[in-house]
Amino acid sequence: MKFIEGGICAVKGVRAGGIKPGKMGIAVIQAEGSAAGVFTRNKVIAAPLMLTRERLAKTGRLSGVIVNSGNANAFTGEQGMADARTMASLLARKLGVDEELIGVSSTGVVGRKLDTDWISSHLQEAMDSMGKDAAASMRAARAIMTTDTIPKEIAIEMESGIRIGGIAKGSGMIEPNMGTMLAFIYTDAQIPSKELQSCLTTAVDKSFNMVVVDGDTSCNDMALLTATGSSGISPGIADFQSGLDLVLTELAKMIAVDGEGATKLIESKVTGAATIEDARLVAKSIVRSPLVKSAIFGKDPNWGRIVVAAGYSGANMDQTKISLSFSAGSEVVELVRSGKVLRNDEETLSRLKSIMGNDEVCIITDLGMGHESATAWGCDLTYDYVRINADYTT
Amino acid sequence: MKFIEGGICAVKGVRAGGIKPGKMGIAVIQAEGSAAGVFTRNKVIAAPLMLTRERLAKTGRLSGVIVNSGNANAFTGEQGMADARTMASLLARKLGVDEELIGVSSTGVVGRKLDTDWISSHLQEAMDSMGKDAAASMRAARAIMTTDTIPKEIAIEMESGIRIGGIAKGSGMIEPNMGTMLAFIYTDAQIPSKELQSCLTTAVDKSFNMVVVDGDTSCNDMALLTATGSSGISPGIADFQSGLDLVLTELAKMIAVDGEGATKLIESKVTGAATIEDARLVAKSIVRSPLVKSAIFGKDPNWGRIVVAAGYSGANMDQTKISLSFSAGSEVVELVRSGKVLRNDEETLSRLKSIMGNDEVCIITDLGMGHESATAWGCDLTYDYVRINADYTT
Repeated sequence: MKFIEGGICAVKGVRAGGIKPGKMGIAVIQAEGSAAGVFTRNKVIAAPLMLTRERLAKTGRLSGVIVNSGNANAFTGEQGMADARTMASLLARKLGVDEELIGVSSTGVVGRKLDTDWISSHLQEAMDSMGKDAAASMRAARAIMTTDTIPKEIAIEMESGIRIGGIAKGSGMIEPNMGTMLAFIYTDAQIPSKELQSCLTTAVDKSFNMVVVDGDTSCNDMALLTATGSSGISPGIADFQSGLDLVLTELAKMIAVDGEGATKLIESKVTGAATIEDARLVAKSIVRSPLVKSAIFGKDPNWGRIVVAAGYSGANMDQTKISLSFSAGSEVVELVRSGKVLRNDEETLSRLKSIMGNDEVCIITDLGMGHESATAWGCDLTYDYVRINADYTT
Repeated sequence: MKFIEGGICAVKGVRAGGIKPGKMGIAVIQAEGSAAGVFTRNKVIAAPLMLTRERLAKTGRLSGVIVNSGNANAFTGEQGMADARTMASLLARKLGVDEELIGVSSTGVVGRKLDTDWISSHLQEAMDSMGKDAAASMRAARAIMTTDTIPKEIAIEMESGIRIGGIAKGSGMIEPNMGTMLAFIYTDAQIPSKELQSCLTTAVDKSFNMVVVDGDTSCNDMALLTATGSSGISPGIADFQSGLDLVLTELAKMIAVDGEGATKLIESKVTGAATIEDARLVAKSIVRSPLVKSAIFGKDPNWGRIVVAAGYSGANMDQTKISLSFSAGSEVVELVRSGKVLRNDEETLSRLKSIMGNDEVCIITDLGMGHESATAWGCDLTYDYVRINADYTT
């Protein structure tokens, strides 16, 4: 398994493009194959999600995807559904495919009518930007950005020869239940849609659903996976799953570190949990805590906040069994072992401050209750988070 | 029912005092009577809570309370239990009462040994500051502060003649499950401890448990209620409950508006819920959302975030039935009625911005699902929140 260049265009059978002249952007992707999708768990669901989920359930296939950034087309009622259908039919006509096989996705402000005239009048420009090279994938990755500061894409080639590539956006509003997080993943493996769906759900649970930026979830989150089959290879499911897990985990980490205003990636590893659900609850509770996030931003060695966040996570735990360490690169500082504070002297706190100064800070919590583990990713809470969100629509 | 001066010292039979020379502080309160307590739901529980909860369950009475600020005495193991017992016995000796009847409470940094020598050597000074007047109540209210910017106290006199007074601290780490929130409430009513406990639990559910500052909960939160009985009056329980609800709700609002770095109070009223649990979930989800909180700080009229927060609250809801308004004072702007956006033009958004500019902003969400309602309180998310928490222990 190795990382390769090219993003989604590293996958045979994928053409992509996109434009982002201002707040609004359009990405277009053409790729024919079996398909699967994972959608937000928010009870307010944007029109494009309703449309895409319904069509995907019916056909199990996609021929292409159209995405706009700048307007979520959420909480827009019947008009929103009509506008999502318009987006699908506009791309279907350009590609000469059935509009039932077009996925539609939106991200941006909630509760405002989508400007379909703008999309219609700019679509040709997006089509003209389409290509099969790395630059084309990058154009699509850029077109779906909102408050993201970097485009997110990745591709791998597995030993069997199959490739998996993905682009994603997400920054702010990211949560375990998938905050405004969009991901479009492609593979040239031959896999029927039922197996694709199962692999995607499993991979999302370990990756996107373990990213926390601010605890909010959006009505627009979706991850779509299309298998073009153009490699001619039908991989073993376990093998494909491991590749898909890697692709989604790498994208998830890119999303976490690009959290609004973030200056560093926080990785929260939980081991020794009685159940996988407990492990996930604790891992996410720690990276979700605004107190933990702002302490790491300020390199404040106030590690007690980690224990407090574990305590209110809802997971089964016992304060006399918990162990806690921080690490960054090869530096490790062990603070608590089986409920006992090992040391809390100036030297230890100063080593902890130094670890907190790194770009990637890992918090390792062992619950001492069993053998399950999980990892969650988040970012620090900074002045810039407040600045970005205090002034988003204006 | 009327508000009166004097805080806890407005209640006959209460003597109080406190000192806060630096980061550490000591408050002492003497009041003999039946008593009740509500404690944190965090699974990590500080030593003073374990001690006080155990003793209260045994005796149903309190003779006094000692509180220190600056160190939470949490996650401190057996040593922490010994230190909490030491605090109780120090005050018991000074007051000449049974140490089993002393409540102990702490707030501050987690995971550090409590400096009982400091407490021991400063206790006499705190005792010397005790009195029965308004200034004495205020000294106790100040002594328990941590990142609080204003002391919090209130007192009322009811028509029956009984009085209820309380002091509280809480700022940051406040959550529905009670973040580092301490409250000491006194009444001169005659009420047995069993009824007191039931009234306190009910009042806490409507007040402190509906305050959200940052979503974290602490291992130290407690509310203690002592009834000295010195009025000689045994009030009807419903009558007493209404007074207690008022006292706790006013303290809860003071805590919300003094959230770390907060510039305004956000009140989230939810009506039309199918169940009281749904109403509470939605009300709290809205005031907990960092996106909503930072939008209100920046007067960004991005009301879609309210609907999104309702959607992920876990409550039963239907996006075609929800209605949404904002108000402040006598100004009201109605944005959504039964799932339909009423208007989203420049004039409406500019009226919304103007409402958001007030010190108290009320968000009214009607779910259109039933007849239950709830109110939660929170504050905006500001640059100062980040500043305070990035640099707490250092």
